[in-house]
Amino acid sequence: MANIKDVAKKAGVSVTTVSRVINNRGYIGKSTRQKVEQAMEDINYSPNQIARALQRSQSFIIGVIVPDSQHPFFAELIKNMELYAYQRNYKLMLCNSLDEAEKEANYMSMLRENRVDGIIMCSQTLDVEEYKKASLPIVSFDRILSSQIPYVSSDNFHGGTLATEHLIEQGCRKLLHLSGPLNLEVLPNRRADAFKLTCMKHDIPYRIVEGEFSREAFSYYPEEFIRGKIDGSLHEYDGVFCSNDLIAYALYMYAVKRGIRVPEDLKIIGYDYNSFTKILQTPRLTTINQPAGRLGKKLCSTLINMIEDKESDAVSNSIIDVELIKGETT
Amino acid sequence: MANIKDVAKKAGVSVTTVSRVINNRGYIGKSTRQKVEQAMEDINYSPNQIARALQRSQSFIIGVIVPDSQHPFFAELIKNMELYAYQRNYKLMLCNSLDEAEKEANYMSMLRENRVDGIIMCSQTLDVEEYKKASLPIVSFDRILSSQIPYVSSDNFHGGTLATEHLIEQGCRKLLHLSGPLNLEVLPNRRADAFKLTCMKHDIPYRIVEGEFSREAFSYYPEEFIRGKIDGSLHEYDGVFCSNDLIAYALYMYAVKRGIRVPEDLKIIGYDYNSFTKILQTPRLTTINQPAGRLGKKLCSTLINMIEDKESDAVSNSIIDVELIKGETT
Repeated sequence: MANIKDVAKKAGVSVTTVSRVINNRGYIGKSTRQKVEQAMEDINYSPNQIARALQRSQSFIIGVIVPDSQHPFFAELIKNMELYAYQRNYKLMLCNSLDEAEKEANYMSMLRENRVDGIIMCSQTLDVEEYKKASLPIVSFDRILSSQIPYVSSDNFHGGTLATEHLIEQGCRKLLHLSGPLNLEVLPNRRADAFKLTCMKHDIPYRIVEGEFSREAFSYYPEEFIRGKIDGSLHEYDGVFCSNDLIAYALYMYAVKRGIRVPEDLKIIGYDYNSFTKILQTPRLTTINQPAGRLGKKLCSTLINMIEDKESDAVSNSIIDVELIKGETT
Repeated sequence: MANIKDVAKKAGVSVTTVSRVINNRGYIGKSTRQKVEQAMEDINYSPNQIARALQRSQSFIIGVIVPDSQHPFFAELIKNMELYAYQRNYKLMLCNSLDEAEKEANYMSMLRENRVDGIIMCSQTLDVEEYKKASLPIVSFDRILSSQIPYVSSDNFHGGTLATEHLIEQGCRKLLHLSGPLNLEVLPNRRADAFKLTCMKHDIPYRIVEGEFSREAFSYYPEEFIRGKIDGSLHEYDGVFCSNDLIAYALYMYAVKRGIRVPEDLKIIGYDYNSFTKILQTPRLTTINQPAGRLGKKLCSTLINMIEDKESDAVSNSIIDVELIKGETT
């Protein structure tokens, strides 16, 4: 069956020129256009093939699925992805899954139908098998989906170690970790692993309390979560490692309202250093900087390289380093 | 020249069926497909026309251009637009202009090339003429582009009145307004107009200080702006109306650091009630709620109605009401 190269050969023009005629783009002289159309007819390049060729052509659109684009961390990640994509001539199609599996699945098929060139997956509610089925290039944020799908994440284990070591160095002797949900196998769980191991190494008693992230992610000020999970037991601890900055801020407010002095009686460290934390002046939170700028850029560049087949042989995972930001809460 | 209807007639099928064959979508039996392709050949429906028909078909993509998707107000607006668009089967393509005219212009043409069905324009750096040239449905946020392009905004004049009246009711007798840049004719300037008129009406001395919004919008914590614009003169005023919450927060911190008691010596009111403000606990800012949820939904529904030609005859502008949120800074 004839293909676009045959048409180009027959018409004596480049494949790009044929593609331009089909796509009605760029400046094509009338005679060239006629030559190409004649060649299509001559070699029986059918209307349906033309449609297919059009559909095969790159859309330069990247689909991004996040739990919630309004969340300060994701808002920063998205902006940085978009700025990088623009430099490489790609556009971002934005999707909010709200951590609902059904919405996420709908978006996956919607994006396929819209012929995006690839997907950056920052929402993790579906079974891993669902992502494997997708016939598109995918890059995952914070989760290992398969050995064929590259992931990008911050160095969660190092972040958890830094946070816990810092609390211990500051004199804490009984530690609490408020983590995300640990039932799903995602990379931020390494923060809890590192917390546990670091406590064991230093012979420090500890407790881990799991959050229901899927809900908490949207109540940005997780006062309920703090009240429900901590209740009267906060005085038993002298240091808390929170799995994100918003929980750390809510815990700080909770403690202060109850007359617990931070950092004198209780030291608090967060995770993210997101745009909320950067604006916040009282208190300046001690936290782990998970650099949204570098993460967003790496997610995008990994996907675009896959789309453009520049690193076709090696799945390249990336772990971006984190750093301690010393604030006033430790 | 033959068109898609002629093809349908010749093949004895519906236009939808022809469109499906061209688009390679849906389930088309082999014989139907052959009939349609034969009809195309018979009546000389050329490859180029097919490409054009494909391009005319709706993309169900809406382009959104914002100055900065990470800014807490725009992040909330975008999320709400996206959630509404999803309900009506549209997708959002996100563009950050960073308030640069060149980037904005590039995006305008990029979106046209990508065959978006319409544009929601929340960035205002180009001359009005540029927007008029676009051959696509456009809805504008916070700016009147032409009598043919509908706009959506919050009731900026009412917001400015509410804020100023509130300061006066709380006992303020010399007022300052920190506004955005007033050289560009945008609807948020009505806040400054209302401030001025309300002060005049109550015989209250006042001053308006203009910000350079294009830069300030990205330094989320506008400490420099406050220091540069206010310097030592803050003690001359007992009430300040800030054109957004981040400026109000920075002003609060500036005052507190200099021993000025808020609200006793100085009353501060902001504008937006954005997601930063909603999370912030100390202080709870007094502000004007510009409802991002309703604004986002209205921007999207107006555009989709235009695209689907449901309100083709009337350009329907929308002004969404605002409300005073009483916090601790007044």
